[in-house]
Amino acid sequence: MSPLKHKIKDGINEDLTGIEDELKRHLSPCLDLVSQVAGHILFCGGKRIRPLLMILSARICGYNGDQDKKYSTMFEYLHTATLLHDDVVDGASMRRGKPVANSIWDPATVILAGDFLLARALSISAETGSPKVIRTIADITEKMSQGEIHQLQRKNDSSLSESEYLEVIRNKTAVLVSGACRVGAIIAQASEIEEEALHTYGYHIGMAFQMADDLLDYTADSTVLGKHIGADLKEGKMTLPVIVAFERADSSDRKFMEKILNARDFSIQDFEKLLTLLTKYGGIEYTRRAAADHIQKAKQALTVFKPAITRNILSDIADFVLTRKS
Amino acid sequence: MSPLKHKIKDGINEDLTGIEDELKRHLSPCLDLVSQVAGHILFCGGKRIRPLLMILSARICGYNGDQDKKYSTMFEYLHTATLLHDDVVDGASMRRGKPVANSIWDPATVILAGDFLLARALSISAETGSPKVIRTIADITEKMSQGEIHQLQRKNDSSLSESEYLEVIRNKTAVLVSGACRVGAIIAQASEIEEEALHTYGYHIGMAFQMADDLLDYTADSTVLGKHIGADLKEGKMTLPVIVAFERADSSDRKFMEKILNARDFSIQDFEKLLTLLTKYGGIEYTRRAAADHIQKAKQALTVFKPAITRNILSDIADFVLTRKS
Repeated sequence: MSPLKHKIKDGINEDLTGIEDELKRHLSPCLDLVSQVAGHILFCGGKRIRPLLMILSARICGYNGDQDKKYSTMFEYLHTATLLHDDVVDGASMRRGKPVANSIWDPATVILAGDFLLARALSISAETGSPKVIRTIADITEKMSQGEIHQLQRKNDSSLSESEYLEVIRNKTAVLVSGACRVGAIIAQASEIEEEALHTYGYHIGMAFQMADDLLDYTADSTVLGKHIGADLKEGKMTLPVIVAFERADSSDRKFMEKILNARDFSIQDFEKLLTLLTKYGGIEYTRRAAADHIQKAKQALTVFKPAITRNILSDIADFVLTRKS
Repeated sequence: MSPLKHKIKDGINEDLTGIEDELKRHLSPCLDLVSQVAGHILFCGGKRIRPLLMILSARICGYNGDQDKKYSTMFEYLHTATLLHDDVVDGASMRRGKPVANSIWDPATVILAGDFLLARALSISAETGSPKVIRTIADITEKMSQGEIHQLQRKNDSSLSESEYLEVIRNKTAVLVSGACRVGAIIAQASEIEEEALHTYGYHIGMAFQMADDLLDYTADSTVLGKHIGADLKEGKMTLPVIVAFERADSSDRKFMEKILNARDFSIQDFEKLLTLLTKYGGIEYTRRAAADHIQKAKQALTVFKPAITRNILSDIADFVLTRKS
């Protein structure tokens, strides 16, 4: 574990335990099968970054109630619901180092378990009794499905532009993270300035998080990442490193990239050649800088708050997003 | 069109037009593809029974605002979302006389379009600003997915009991209908007695509706129904006519039924023999009576209200559920 990860962990260990307990508690009265399918992906090493950000956002705004852990589960359930549907949609085989749910259960069961988790998240949002929280959750859900559909629509399409990519990742990733931070502020009855600051922080964290994730597909060690390297590419997903390199490539390199983008499968040699091109045309570097820029802005947004332990943790989490290896 | 259908139509024509307009309006700002996939099933002859029941329930409780049509779309969107996911889950080929969405689009698109409609329903529930409405919608969503999973779990299992079947159809069908009626009462700020009466009415309508639907699979003319006769059986779904006949059958008939239940496909002769057994052992008759009993109770629940046009329409709708041919 990196020193930064250690430092963050020390500050949030209790929160993480609380989140785990609540995630189990709100799932347990359900049908065995749902618990199993949902549990398969829920309890295998997720980072709980979304619920954690909600809890920390509430805390930095002075929340001192005892419902934060419970409410925070909404964001992990929503996230897990989309992962379950994604795995059916993408046809991926591995997730978090384990076979995906729909290689164990039939797709029907996985789809319905996802629906159930979505519904569970809504039920918990209804329990907050706050129309503002509920509107945020509804909005997140809507945007996420739009983002996923948008991505699916443009699958295997090398003409996907950077701005379209940014819209996709905003909807499918950043909206949930910024929503989690905003909800933290809302339940703490924070001022509008604080709420906006946390929303901005979450937005930039979400964007950077997705970019870092997209980078890992081309840079990580597969044993660390727990999924197959080049998985995005195999699914025909255009991500920023590829978009940038493709735009800048000369016609022969572009032709090669197009071929590999359209292939359902490719050799290790082809993939390695692609990696060389991503570096040659600065796709990797461009994405790294864009992510770093978002992290900078996320940390900037925190300056609304006075220096304090929670602010430091939020800032450390921002840094961690950039340095994580899995 | 039957005289009863005519009579009902006359009383609700304006409502139906309003529902159609709102269904289109709340879908139009969305991605083209979502509108297409959702529209494929949304705008091809659905009966709009759920939104209609919400509107009539509000009206009978004295609602005179102008948001009822808009709010009523929640129930059609929720219903359509489950149809989209169901069609992927069931692997059916026809729905409402048209090829199912996932024979036109890939399953991924259909799943995500379903997610989007679910999210749209929630957004509209959030717009009501009523925590009670939102709780009802969240509860419906949760129960529906539980019902579907339960059904899926017991697929091809001839040991499914009547009480288990009743629990499945309560969750997957009746909860949505009773929820629509309850929400109508809530937005009309009705008394608790009125709200409970409409909830009871909706519950019985929902149960009868599903039983009638299950019966149609064994009794309808396939050109009227718009789906293949025996579809439930092909999907391994145990419904009441079969459950009852199976329980009462002698060992040789039971053996035959078991065989046909486990077959992925069967001959017309086999299906016709099964129909004979469903009649011989009173499965058809038993289900018809159970549905009629629910309709009786639904109408009984309406006696809380004074005689009026809306009460008559609700009562006629109850009768229609029993007599419908498609």
